[in-house]
Amino acid sequence: MRTLLYRYVPALKSNFFTKSQGFHKSVGVLQRLATEEPKAPFIQTEIPGPKSRTLFNELSTVQNSLAVQFFVDYDKSYGNYLVDVDGNVMLDMFTQIASIPIGYNHPCLVETIKKEENLSTFINRPALAVFPPGDWLQRLQSSLLAVAPPGLNEIQTMACGACSIEHGMKAMFIAYQRKKRGGQPPSKEELQTCITGVAPGCPDLCILSFKNAFHGRTMGALAITHSKPVHKLDFPVPYWPMASFPILKYPLEENVRENQAEERRCLEEVEDLIVSWNKSGRPVVGCVIEPMQAEGGDNFASAEFFQGLQEICSKHDVSLAIDEVQTGCGSTGKFWAHEHFNLKESPDIVAFSKKMLTGGFYYKEHYRPHEAQRIFNTWVGDPSKVILLEAVVKVIKEQNLLARVNDTGKCLFGGLQGLQTQYPNLLSRLRGLGCYGSIDLPSMEIRDKVISKLRAKGVNTGGCGEKSIRFRPTLTLEKHHVDIFLDKFNSVLHEVDSSQEKCERAKA
Amino acid sequence: MRTLLYRYVPALKSNFFTKSQGFHKSVGVLQRLATEEPKAPFIQTEIPGPKSRTLFNELSTVQNSLAVQFFVDYDKSYGNYLVDVDGNVMLDMFTQIASIPIGYNHPCLVETIKKEENLSTFINRPALAVFPPGDWLQRLQSSLLAVAPPGLNEIQTMACGACSIEHGMKAMFIAYQRKKRGGQPPSKEELQTCITGVAPGCPDLCILSFKNAFHGRTMGALAITHSKPVHKLDFPVPYWPMASFPILKYPLEENVRENQAEERRCLEEVEDLIVSWNKSGRPVVGCVIEPMQAEGGDNFASAEFFQGLQEICSKHDVSLAIDEVQTGCGSTGKFWAHEHFNLKESPDIVAFSKKMLTGGFYYKEHYRPHEAQRIFNTWVGDPSKVILLEAVVKVIKEQNLLARVNDTGKCLFGGLQGLQTQYPNLLSRLRGLGCYGSIDLPSMEIRDKVISKLRAKGVNTGGCGEKSIRFRPTLTLEKHHVDIFLDKFNSVLHEVDSSQEKCERAKA
Repeated sequence: MRTLLYRYVPALKSNFFTKSQGFHKSVGVLQRLATEEPKAPFIQTEIPGPKSRTLFNELSTVQNSLAVQFFVDYDKSYGNYLVDVDGNVMLDMFTQIASIPIGYNHPCLVETIKKEENLSTFINRPALAVFPPGDWLQRLQSSLLAVAPPGLNEIQTMACGACSIEHGMKAMFIAYQRKKRGGQPPSKEELQTCITGVAPGCPDLCILSFKNAFHGRTMGALAITHSKPVHKLDFPVPYWPMASFPILKYPLEENVRENQAEERRCLEEVEDLIVSWNKSGRPVVGCVIEPMQAEGGDNFASAEFFQGLQEICSKHDVSLAIDEVQTGCGSTGKFWAHEHFNLKESPDIVAFSKKMLTGGFYYKEHYRPHEAQRIFNTWVGDPSKVILLEAVVKVIKEQNLLARVNDTGKCLFGGLQGLQTQYPNLLSRLRGLGCYGSIDLPSMEIRDKVISKLRAKGVNTGGCGEKSIRFRPTLTLEKHHVDIFLDKFNSVLHEVDSSQEKCERAKA
Repeated sequence: MRTLLYRYVPALKSNFFTKSQGFHKSVGVLQRLATEEPKAPFIQTEIPGPKSRTLFNELSTVQNSLAVQFFVDYDKSYGNYLVDVDGNVMLDMFTQIASIPIGYNHPCLVETIKKEENLSTFINRPALAVFPPGDWLQRLQSSLLAVAPPGLNEIQTMACGACSIEHGMKAMFIAYQRKKRGGQPPSKEELQTCITGVAPGCPDLCILSFKNAFHGRTMGALAITHSKPVHKLDFPVPYWPMASFPILKYPLEENVRENQAEERRCLEEVEDLIVSWNKSGRPVVGCVIEPMQAEGGDNFASAEFFQGLQEICSKHDVSLAIDEVQTGCGSTGKFWAHEHFNLKESPDIVAFSKKMLTGGFYYKEHYRPHEAQRIFNTWVGDPSKVILLEAVVKVIKEQNLLARVNDTGKCLFGGLQGLQTQYPNLLSRLRGLGCYGSIDLPSMEIRDKVISKLRAKGVNTGGCGEKSIRFRPTLTLEKHHVDIFLDKFNSVLHEVDSSQEKCERAKA
């Protein structure tokens, strides 16, 4: 009965689906959601197509829409396939900027929404920290706490990634000042001066971050973001210490000594900055870092680098926060990317969002505020997202998706390795873990051309850094998807390679 | 059929409901949501009751839960009544810190969630600015744009109030710098320096705000928040100009001259600050203000004050942003509180959240960024909230709820006026518009006691400022609710008054 209920996929040609699709009416309602994954991409217009372009022009009358790539038919999208409003069916290797954990319209999520006992959570958004629902702890336990990073047992929910980072930093500032006060309450002067925003109430503390980092677009998150001008230009943000993040040479096995030196250089820079800023009277309270820099170019560093970083932080009493907004929830083959680093102890704070469906951060008990309403806002997240996450976590566990990510990842990066060998003039710096990774093209121009040509062949990917393509599929990607992707990528590279050659021959 | 489907309200005694409640099973599922409003409050335990206290202790093992008042059974809550996990039924005059627009479990919202054509929007959260759904503009038009403040035709969605304010400020900074550049692109130096967070790329611009203001808890929003130490203590935030917000004397008609002088004083302060900060090389780009300060004590100012403020801003080329996060969506009797001010032209930016179910801001075309991804993040809001808002806006219009707010508000504040006359030692400074307002008690201690006693009698309210109780009912509050509230309030005041008298007699 349920299967029938969801079978209607109007505009798509039936031969692109495993089973034929039909129209079904039930209780007088036309059923609309796709229930099966297309067998292959299917492109019938250029992208963006005519419908997308019309919608773009219309939307542009009420807001800046220049970031729109195309408009999507989310009813028809399914699994690893995104369907646009012009009926183009694309294999999605970008998934809403790394956000869709188990594919579009997953039946378990449809079921979750339809459950009578979940309805009120979608309807009545609570002031969660003041009037939580009776089942709140239970819901946390079967979702966020069920996948907590080892060693982190406390949880704060938030509505988005930037807020998770902002409040994670606040937790570090609170813990730092509490320790400094040695159990004494804040002074009258502190209580008065903080209202206007000056010391000692608002002390001149700072957070260390890294070149090419991206942590979000609110002011505090921007202060530790250092990747592209589009994020920061024109905005007053605090000036805080920025260390180099290692830029490794690839292939790794041929550049061992150089990469070690690069990572050592970066760690020395971290320690020098901590010492010099502490001396200058602007103490470094915390360090925030991505396990793999994403927006900034998919920059990876070794486990040893992160171990060294933790050691330096520990030595100088600097809190260590890992920003897993883009890397968390399994895409690297471990649930949390920092689990690859075999850290001596868990990081102090781990922030998440995107695939986790809700924002928030895990923290060590030391970072729990002692007073009410210190880390707080009206909503502090959204229990309806946590209910959906509960279903996602269940699917990940029951279907052992982390193992699948590792298996599929081997095919993906193995295949990409082959293409890199085949197109040495086009591809370089292949890097990845699980199904999370990137490859570089020679220039931004060529990268953008490749992304556009891939899309025209039915594969949606995204760029990052200056000239990288990033791969961010769902956790349900399988080998047959990888085959399709590699085939399309090969064909695009072949085209681009030929036209490059022609160009060069013409020049010569 | 639909009515039957939602009829089950298990723990509540049937005589407190308009019609008797029963158990219904349908398609094998126990129907759980309340479908009718209780006739009156019904209290069976102290609040928090034993179940709430147990849940509190359990939740406290994984996070700081000190802000929790009690745990709620959202299935059983309905309309203007909140039901806690101990079965206590409370008339809710606080509504999740001013967030529930048309009452708990409104049938139109239940229907919205259940509609097959809405499902995919709840399941597949898009990167809205990159891959928007095909019906996005249509959805905006029937929700946010259908209630846009007069003169503001452009819209940016965001996930929460703080992000709305942060990005609203960024829109002002972008417009300011663009104008300053006079059509020239940013310089190489600007593009380079903004990455580290220093001038000229990150210029030392500022936003003027007001004493007692509350705008959110991320760093930029905190820079313009000046109400309580709990929000800002220990956090490094930029030091920006803070002007006095008028503190009016009540009753207004007896303090006309003094209040005019107070507002004049505040406006002069605003202008002096703009001039002096501009001179000091930290130009004031924008001014952010609440139409009525909420968290900071429900401070109202006159229409003339806001007209004067707009004039000063206009004279000094300072953008004016109105923060309607708490005041928007009808509770003052107009859809936007600033509509009470008869401003010469619309404000430049109007931010919202809470009752609007989604965050965001309206802006004048001048504040539209010219480039892609300047005001941007992965989610930029959540279309599933916009779908719910669409239903809310429909209900507000069809049921003419703004008229009801004005009618009910007259009863509410008329009744409170009577109580203020009756208890001159306890109540003062009654102020309000529509159903949005406050009254003061003699001290924080007495205020907190009154809130707690009101709750014990079945009315949920909230505090604000130092010693105010704020009233933030839904838009569906009616006269019979007001009667219940006034009756309970009277009885609490009588008790407190008697015990105060006894105390004083004992002292004498």
